[in-house]
Amino acid sequence: MSSFACHPPILLVEDSPVDVDLSMRAFSRRKLVNPVLVARDGEEALAWIPRWEAGELKPAVILLDLKLPRVDGLTVLRELKIHPGLQRIPVVILTTSKEDRDINGAYDLGANSYIVKPVDFEKFMHVAQQIELYWCVTNELPR
Amino acid sequence: MSSFACHPPILLVEDSPVDVDLSMRAFSRRKLVNPVLVARDGEEALAWIPRWEAGELKPAVILLDLKLPRVDGLTVLRELKIHPGLQRIPVVILTTSKEDRDINGAYDLGANSYIVKPVDFEKFMHVAQQIELYWCVTNELPR
Repeated sequence: MSSFACHPPILLVEDSPVDVDLSMRAFSRRKLVNPVLVARDGEEALAWIPRWEAGELKPAVILLDLKLPRVDGLTVLRELKIHPGLQRIPVVILTTSKEDRDINGAYDLGANSYIVKPVDFEKFMHVAQQIELYWCVTNELPR
Repeated sequence: MSSFACHPPILLVEDSPVDVDLSMRAFSRRKLVNPVLVARDGEEALAWIPRWEAGELKPAVILLDLKLPRVDGLTVLRELKIHPGLQRIPVVILTTSKEDRDINGAYDLGANSYIVKPVDFEKFMHVAQQIELYWCVTNELPR
């Protein structure tokens, strides 16, 4: 588990087992060392907050679906982006929704990026790998 | 100029002619259709605001250097991110600075991403192309 201690994880907030599986397969293709954490709904995502407050390594990026059970994605986003200690964590919305209301709403709440999940399998894999490379390697993390 | 009318541009705010040249070469390799606008200092960048307010097509992304003549990058970022009509435009900081103060300051002002310019030529080209692909193709623009 030494890589877990050194490399900030990716937090994937996603209720679809198929999309979780696809994302994990895409990430493993790149062979990056960042561990992937999965939250299956908004409540599980918010349950990470006290752990980060207690000093656990914050994620390099949070990939956040919008249509989630129990607590929806925009509510999770709002909670993160008003939290003084967590608001710098990059949040990428990764969703099937192309609705203007969701897109603008996410940007207004401080989403760093908004990506519509490709339906095509290969395109999904490509986009997931691109996201991982961009946010885990190219982007500079907040300190 | 028909592509200009349809495709949102990239606004590159960069005072180094060498870095402008490298970026333009990197972008042209991808053969994307988004036009590239260049502002050579912070004042030139801010001069775009009234044009966007008047309805000119807003950029898909603003690539913003920090150390700029006349008006510095963080001031430009602040102006953009408090502007009700422009705050959704993605702003990527692209700079040589690795200082914690700059990185955290940029995230606190609402930067969507922070990238340290690679010194190596080929790495710079690769990162510039990655930025272009991510923000002009993969990312969903605000409406």
